[in-house]
Amino acid sequence: MTGARRRARDLGIVVGSLPIGRHNAITDVPGVLVGHTTIDNGADLRTGVTVVVPSALGPGRWALPAAVFCGNGYGKLVGSTQVDELGVLESPIALTATLSVFRVADALLGHLMERRPDGLSFNPLVGETNDGHLSDIRRRPIGAEHVRAALAGASADPPAEGCVGAGTGTTALGYKAGIGTSSRTVRVAGRPATVGVLVQANFGGVLTVLGVPMPVDELVPDADRTTPAGNSCMIVVATDLPLDARQLGRVARRAVFAMGRVGASYSHGSGDYAIAFRTVGADDTAGADEPPICDGDLDPVFAAVLDTVEEALLNSLFTAVTTTGVGGRTSHAVPHDAVIRRLSAAGRLASRT
Amino acid sequence: MTGARRRARDLGIVVGSLPIGRHNAITDVPGVLVGHTTIDNGADLRTGVTVVVPSALGPGRWALPAAVFCGNGYGKLVGSTQVDELGVLESPIALTATLSVFRVADALLGHLMERRPDGLSFNPLVGETNDGHLSDIRRRPIGAEHVRAALAGASADPPAEGCVGAGTGTTALGYKAGIGTSSRTVRVAGRPATVGVLVQANFGGVLTVLGVPMPVDELVPDADRTTPAGNSCMIVVATDLPLDARQLGRVARRAVFAMGRVGASYSHGSGDYAIAFRTVGADDTAGADEPPICDGDLDPVFAAVLDTVEEALLNSLFTAVTTTGVGGRTSHAVPHDAVIRRLSAAGRLASRT
Amino acid sequence: MTGARRRARDLGIVVGSLPIGRHNAITDVPGVLVGHTTIDNGADLRTGVTVVVPSALGPGRWALPAAVFCGNGYGKLVGSTQVDELGVLESPIALTATLSVFRVADALLGHLMERRPDGLSFNPLVGETNDGHLSDIRRRPIGAEHVRAALAGASADPPAEGCVGAGTGTTALGYKAGIGTSSRTVRVAGRPATVGVLVQANFGGVLTVLGVPMPVDELVPDADRTTPAGNSCMIVVATDLPLDARQLGRVARRAVFAMGRVGASYSHGSGDYAIAFRTVGADDTAGADEPPICDGDLDPVFAAVLDTVEEALLNSLFTAVTTTGVGGRTSHAVPHDAVIRRLSAAGRLASRT
Amino acid sequence: MTGARRRARDLGIVVGSLPIGRHNAITDVPGVLVGHTTIDNGADLRTGVTVVVPSALGPGRWALPAAVFCGNGYGKLVGSTQVDELGVLESPIALTATLSVFRVADALLGHLMERRPDGLSFNPLVGETNDGHLSDIRRRPIGAEHVRAALAGASADPPAEGCVGAGTGTTALGYKAGIGTSSRTVRVAGRPATVGVLVQANFGGVLTVLGVPMPVDELVPDADRTTPAGNSCMIVVATDLPLDARQLGRVARRAVFAMGRVGASYSHGSGDYAIAFRTVGADDTAGADEPPICDGDLDPVFAAVLDTVEEALLNSLFTAVTTTGVGGRTSHAVPHDAVIRRLSAAGRLASRT
Repeated sequence: MTGARRRARDLGIVVGSLPIGRHNAITDVPGVLVGHTTIDNGADLRTGVTVVVPSALGPGRWALPAAVFCGNGYGKLVGSTQVDELGVLESPIALTATLSVFRVADALLGHLMERRPDGLSFNPLVGETNDGHLSDIRRRPIGAEHVRAALAGASADPPAEGCVGAGTGTTALGYKAGIGTSSRTVRVAGRPATVGVLVQANFGGVLTVLGVPMPVDELVPDADRTTPAGNSCMIVVATDLPLDARQLGRVARRAVFAMGRVGASYSHGSGDYAIAFRTVGADDTAGADEPPICDGDLDPVFAAVLDTVEEALLNSLFTAVTTTGVGGRTSHAVPHDAVIRRLSAAGRLASRT
Repeated sequence: MTGARRRARDLGIVVGSLPIGRHNAITDVPGVLVGHTTIDNGADLRTGVTVVVPSALGPGRWALPAAVFCGNGYGKLVGSTQVDELGVLESPIALTATLSVFRVADALLGHLMERRPDGLSFNPLVGETNDGHLSDIRRRPIGAEHVRAALAGASADPPAEGCVGAGTGTTALGYKAGIGTSSRTVRVAGRPATVGVLVQANFGGVLTVLGVPMPVDELVPDADRTTPAGNSCMIVVATDLPLDARQLGRVARRAVFAMGRVGASYSHGSGDYAIAFRTVGADDTAGADEPPICDGDLDPVFAAVLDTVEEALLNSLFTAVTTTGVGGRTSHAVPHDAVIRRLSAAGRLASRT
Repeated sequence: MTGARRRARDLGIVVGSLPIGRHNAITDVPGVLVGHTTIDNGADLRTGVTVVVPSALGPGRWALPAAVFCGNGYGKLVGSTQVDELGVLESPIALTATLSVFRVADALLGHLMERRPDGLSFNPLVGETNDGHLSDIRRRPIGAEHVRAALAGASADPPAEGCVGAGTGTTALGYKAGIGTSSRTVRVAGRPATVGVLVQANFGGVLTVLGVPMPVDELVPDADRTTPAGNSCMIVVATDLPLDARQLGRVARRAVFAMGRVGASYSHGSGDYAIAFRTVGADDTAGADEPPICDGDLDPVFAAVLDTVEEALLNSLFTAVTTTGVGGRTSHAVPHDAVIRRLSAAGRLASRT
Repeated sequence: MTGARRRARDLGIVVGSLPIGRHNAITDVPGVLVGHTTIDNGADLRTGVTVVVPSALGPGRWALPAAVFCGNGYGKLVGSTQVDELGVLESPIALTATLSVFRVADALLGHLMERRPDGLSFNPLVGETNDGHLSDIRRRPIGAEHVRAALAGASADPPAEGCVGAGTGTTALGYKAGIGTSSRTVRVAGRPATVGVLVQANFGGVLTVLGVPMPVDELVPDADRTTPAGNSCMIVVATDLPLDARQLGRVARRAVFAMGRVGASYSHGSGDYAIAFRTVGADDTAGADEPPICDGDLDPVFAAVLDTVEEALLNSLFTAVTTTGVGGRTSHAVPHDAVIRRLSAAGRLASRT
């Protein structure tokens, strides 16, 4: 479905100057897998679930340093107080649709219980945004089988973007949006590291690409003017740097700050959250004993987070396709040509696409 | 089941000097209903759900000022970030067992959806403690029917205490505990008001009654020494004072502070949360336009919260009965006689019971 | 000193589409006064103090609703915990240089003590950024007389901008910066209101004007490449809307989010804070009993905050002049012509200036 | 001055069952020094400054892990936002009187500047409580020389308690109070450690010793009934365990929770703060590379904090002496004999004193 649409960078849109990871995806961070289950009946169900799985979670390591930042708490993020208290992630992160969040949390809990047959307490972390503009959200269609499928299909391959998984029915900045991802490689205190981001984009504002506004009423003049009901953004940041929970909290804050770069209005009804966690590499045992990173060395990480979130958000929009959903409402895809023309006129396009 | 057990005050144990409400219960606060569903098979299932329902929530008023305080976040409180952001409660509060929390949240969501057929976003607030010491928690036995029954049965009558609802399988301070409640009437800036509390007690420490330690290994020498797995405390505070969310946050903090009075150890594994909300009276329209309360007038409220939480916790213990649950583990009821003897020896008993 | 430099809007740079207040300044909010004391010896002392004075503070009203948001806490904001707790501002807000912050706080305290001869507790609110790049900050040159002068000179006139008061020695985004201000008028739930902002700009990143990057090494090729030591941003937001402290906290968060619009790097060493407060009009008694604003009506306020902070930051840069300070270091003024040329080429300039 | 008064434990009052450190003082934690400067003219000035100095702060290590918890923010703690952000303590901690807090902060800043002649940014941490009940607080009598003297006199000897330093003029629970200290040794994950506490006690409530109320109007019937103006509690916790900032935040919370054990009313006007930090031993280099402590191993530390704060608060009261100060107001010392009689009657006294 998303194959025909190009990513921002493929169109010559280059965010910042830091080098990207191998696939410009969160899965470039060693030890991060992504899986999607898409529920799309071609009509009134446009929804799904996306999981970000730290592969290091398993026997011998049931927790990884993590933090949550809540930029605007009009949302139902499940699991946040325990992350705040203990500074760890104990489960894959799932993203889904608002009214399905507890079913997904219960399914993720079931998965954790299967993995730890003696466990009596688990903290699944599940974020959501409201895809009710295009999907019949009140049906709560996402069940344990969808979560199980997303987990089973999770891989280190570059994840699908756009109208897939938890992004199937989302709308951002007036356009059809969805899942997006991006990554950067940085050197921090002399050691190489990767910062990867995955977003579920569903928020308001005026799309801004490399500083150039792309208002939907100018680029898609006949677009449906209906305001989406509820709008939010979930951002997941992963890194293989040995950051502790407090430092990851600083990282998470920058992820929300970066939303402004693409024109977010940070509106009242938007649940804007970032979750940041540390991996220990694809090999479950690597990296555990690395010396800590000084806060004074974090600026390259912060810069990478800002750029990566911006590009992941653009990717979530550029890869999504025009979708008509429940109530006959349509979210239009960002028209690449028009965007490129405007960027070119503004001199913001990279010299070669 | 709990009829045979007397409450703390019936035994001559008087906490503080403030007058109690009519029934010394959270339902003394006008506009507060409580309902329980108990799941107890007499063997390995000792669990349930308890709901605290602000009757004012309904057409014309879908939100009441509220706040959450997290004393120790080893817990899975559902709904907290939105309460933090918007300062309101939008749903009944449900309390249940840890691994059932998402099923209960989904059921409560279903209830809210039925009440508001056009709604696309709801924020159910669901707390939990871990009753896995006595109940086969991994079965996740609590479903929509149990939540529905608790809501349907919610009333302004004095709620049952002890081994009932979400307290069926809990253990606190070494003894069988459960649900407890208490209330106080206060005058704040010249106007009368009620502060009511309901607790789900399931935490560690050494029971202390009016300052006198009552260690389980002294009062029940043959008691099972097994440490409960996971232990937590959920506290719900209601008041008819026109407090705003910030002030209710101050109230919620005192509720957690009060746990120390009965000997709480505030241990690592305890999810200790308080939720405070404001009612607007039994009549849905009363009280909405009252002038705000100055912070400088809050001390009587704070004093009432400290006393009420202390007494509700004692009630949760004094009304609970010895229970044997999953794995043949037994939590012993607090032996009233022994407690009274110790209090009497220490001169701490009120002159007449 | 700043007369010769034009503000952003005077150059045809229009941020957003909301109408500005009468003078496009924080003093457009009724009941807000601003005063500066500049300490500038033409050589190694380039510092000062700026005060934002809510005129309503006085006999009968010693507190106004207020909130603080800390975007990055590498700073010494004095007074924040009491604002968090009580949700009120009890003093004028002072901004100054890092190492002088306690002397200014003590001076402001003296001022408050004079006004309330019986008072035994006061909470002065004092922010700071580090102007040590241009000023001999270790001399701690700011004393009670400077604070007193700033307070005495505070007026409702449009405040001076650029190299004045607490902005005398600051540097932002590679250029000489200083104090900036801006305002917007909005309609919220049918009533008119004003949002005003004053900033002390001293942070890192790449200057971005209406989305167009203006890197100092391109616009001022011979500029000193020395990185300023420490960099931060203090933002003060005032409004005459009857917002409560929780809502003002939401406003304050957007103020920090807006820094990204001008290219802030949100770096480790930056103390990025926003303070938001409510006035009750120039007449001390007006507005106190207005009905509260629903959160659902806040989006115009949030939009105004984003735009106003962006424009105030631009004004802080566009009105500042090239300054050479301690150690012979120079911060160059933003070259207006070059900026205009780039904006014009990008098609971002308003048609008429 | 305080020699004639015995500490709680000397009177047979034993808090908890954990072993105390060598001197039952915060200075039992290796690497912690305490110094006092007392300002007492025998009449209307009863104030001072107390410093807690981590000896490890110096060349090569200008920061130690630390955290602050604000139980009730009616106070002027200087330096908290930077501790929150960076998780470190960069200076000795000073405690003093409310209106002198900025002068002390400026003096402590001066001290830090002398130690680091190239430094341009420092974060002194200064707490305060309001001793205006007994001291003419509006004179702001504490200056740089007093801070310098306290720092110069800081030593690892058991610190003086009661009416000394920042406790010279404080009143708690109706009685004359002051500075108190206590310590415990614990084993955490197999390694020995020390937890030490120092308090500046100045808060309201009803003194409760080992659970037995000791109301001032019963024990000192002729006592002045004047309510002190403003009341607060500052708690400093030190440990040589390699805790990180997040864990120290958990520790700090328990310190405030412990205030309830001695009868704190947690009133509106009380600024109740705890600061927790980690030392690295008397030898500046020891301990830096120790493996981290798991949160699951923290319960002994939490228990030690609860007991140590309780005992330090008792010590602050038991060692203080009756003092008449400004306005002729008198705070009475806790009458040891009456306390002992009540404890003995309640059976709460240790068998041998």
